[in-house]
Amino acid sequence: MKVAVIGVGQTKFGEEWNKSLRDLAREAGQEALKDASLSSSVIQSLHVGNMSAGRFSGQEHVSALVADSLNIKAPSVRCEAACASGALAFRSALHSIQAGSSNIAIALGVEKMSDLGVDQTTTTLMAASDQEWEANMGATFPGLYALIARAHMHQYGTTREQMALVSVNNHKNGSANKLAQFPFPVSVEQVLNSTMVADPLTLLDCSPITDGSAAIILASEDYVRQNNIENPIWVAASAQGNDTIALHDRSSLTQMDSVKAAAKSAYEQSGLTPEKINFAEVHDCFSINELVAIEGLGFCNEGESGKFVENGEISLQGSKPINTTGGLKSIGHPVGATGIRQIVDITKQLRENSINQLNSVSNGLALNVGGSGATAVIHILTNQL
Amino acid sequence: MKVAVIGVGQTKFGEEWNKSLRDLAREAGQEALKDASLSSSVIQSLHVGNMSAGRFSGQEHVSALVADSLNIKAPSVRCEAACASGALAFRSALHSIQAGSSNIAIALGVEKMSDLGVDQTTTTLMAASDQEWEANMGATFPGLYALIARAHMHQYGTTREQMALVSVNNHKNGSANKLAQFPFPVSVEQVLNSTMVADPLTLLDCSPITDGSAAIILASEDYVRQNNIENPIWVAASAQGNDTIALHDRSSLTQMDSVKAAAKSAYEQSGLTPEKINFAEVHDCFSINELVAIEGLGFCNEGESGKFVENGEISLQGSKPINTTGGLKSIGHPVGATGIRQIVDITKQLRENSINQLNSVSNGLALNVGGSGATAVIHILTNQL
Repeated sequence: MKVAVIGVGQTKFGEEWNKSLRDLAREAGQEALKDASLSSSVIQSLHVGNMSAGRFSGQEHVSALVADSLNIKAPSVRCEAACASGALAFRSALHSIQAGSSNIAIALGVEKMSDLGVDQTTTTLMAASDQEWEANMGATFPGLYALIARAHMHQYGTTREQMALVSVNNHKNGSANKLAQFPFPVSVEQVLNSTMVADPLTLLDCSPITDGSAAIILASEDYVRQNNIENPIWVAASAQGNDTIALHDRSSLTQMDSVKAAAKSAYEQSGLTPEKINFAEVHDCFSINELVAIEGLGFCNEGESGKFVENGEISLQGSKPINTTGGLKSIGHPVGATGIRQIVDITKQLRENSINQLNSVSNGLALNVGGSGATAVIHILTNQL
Repeated sequence: MKVAVIGVGQTKFGEEWNKSLRDLAREAGQEALKDASLSSSVIQSLHVGNMSAGRFSGQEHVSALVADSLNIKAPSVRCEAACASGALAFRSALHSIQAGSSNIAIALGVEKMSDLGVDQTTTTLMAASDQEWEANMGATFPGLYALIARAHMHQYGTTREQMALVSVNNHKNGSANKLAQFPFPVSVEQVLNSTMVADPLTLLDCSPITDGSAAIILASEDYVRQNNIENPIWVAASAQGNDTIALHDRSSLTQMDSVKAAAKSAYEQSGLTPEKINFAEVHDCFSINELVAIEGLGFCNEGESGKFVENGEISLQGSKPINTTGGLKSIGHPVGATGIRQIVDITKQLRENSINQLNSVSNGLALNVGGSGATAVIHILTNQL
């Protein structure tokens, strides 16, 4: 069954000291409902992406909290797989509609991260890793991704400058984004000279700690037709891949099997090939992850992502524009909200009202990654049925 | 699309000091696979019910951990809505199959609660309430349910003895259950004279803190037919209702709108009426909740559940046997696992191999409740297609 995105909303991402978890969700949800010209009473199910409100805010049962704050009287569920929670909430909404359980649903991602100190936030984020075998050994996520970066540099000759160019691209694209946490450009020199976090990754290779929420209204084809919805953006593929939770159990440090498995399925479902993808939102929690993902998605050959970025292929004018509104690096990364925010921004491009509008795009791909790659979720959207 | 339960497994419930979160999930999952005579390689998706491993065990991204521990290389997601997380994982697996995303899936609930002290466990459980408006005001779950109990006594004349009889029934049924945390009978006097927790609820009105896991293999009708699966137990209904997260926002303290909404939908889907339900698993986190639920499910009129229990209707020999294997009270309540365990025990009854086998049963209903009733999930199963 065909399903469409018919409404989107996003709060400002950043350190939102004056807004609670509940406030953020309400704001994004109401904006999505307004965008779809709907009242909350028509919503038949709610799917919330949230990684760790239990630790960040002392609040589990977030689905009930969000339903309450939006006055939604319908089944609600929270979906979680670390930083891929948002995409899984979207996928849960999609399955609910395709299963015939609802005709119109809302997928909403939210995370309120700034209420804990940086040390407690780092500890909480490490709950996405293998607690017994990684976190307890003292690893942090910058540390795990630094291992991936070092292996990629060693194996393929990828350079620090090539990694830095990922952040440069994403910050450049985000500089006009009023909803971004860090809406300003950075230079390669600034990235290389910023504080070292986990060698070789510096501060400007790392996405920030962020508060924020994003929401999407999904509807069945029947609903779209019966209500004469204008400009629906259709879901052409929903795919997921997985891998071991701990990095040391993987067959490769430099390639993500989860991304490859999800990509294979997404291309099969949509009938598209990597070459036919017009643009993409790619999970750049760390600059190196965007490089690894570009290869896993088949946008270039293994080991060639550094050159691909260096050649400008991912820029707005390149062959494969990536993170056209700023990515996790510039917009910010409220972990449970990111997967939804990516699809919000793809929808805006396909509706032709993005802040950095591309010409003649008919499809876009979103890749949301959980942990150090244990979970990868891909959605492809199109403005052509 | 018809979907069947084709394998079930459950660990011993209790204080399992020598087993980790991972160990518990692996044990239940492997047992379910063995019960279905399947290897983990055939599983196409994994749906994990877990409320708060982030706080209990420092582990989010539990779906990836469980997939890893069972060597499952397939999409995985964690579903959460407090104590209703298990039923929602089952529902997510069902939707995945009905949406055509997988043909065979595993729904697994797990919670490892005993690693925190009782005070921290109580705080963590309160994360299922409205954190800002209930937990921060000092309420606990026994306290919230005590408010419901007092209101029910005041409004309908329900007695302490009638509430105690719920615990007596469930402990009696659980006394032969080798997987139960407290497999022994209790008397009305013992319930009334046990330590006061939150007036009028005493210790033996309250379900315990428990470690445990349960798992279920679900398959599409096509899979069942093609593989000549023997004795499939079919899902006749999957329904969910919701209400405000905070108790003080409800229209009634003594009736749960979430249960009523879910029941209405479940009866419509299955073509059954309350009278036609042969037996039920009913969420007895506190004795009063079983009474409120019996009314919400339509097994008796509003306000008459005390008499209904007093008359022996819920006993194994009664008109509507409830919690035939011990319920949350005797078996234990590892919050994310309970909703799955309920369906495991219904499956065993419908396969005619329960520890307390009922005669001539063709259907059973499971009600799993989250928080103080914000989330209610009902499944009806049948051994007749």
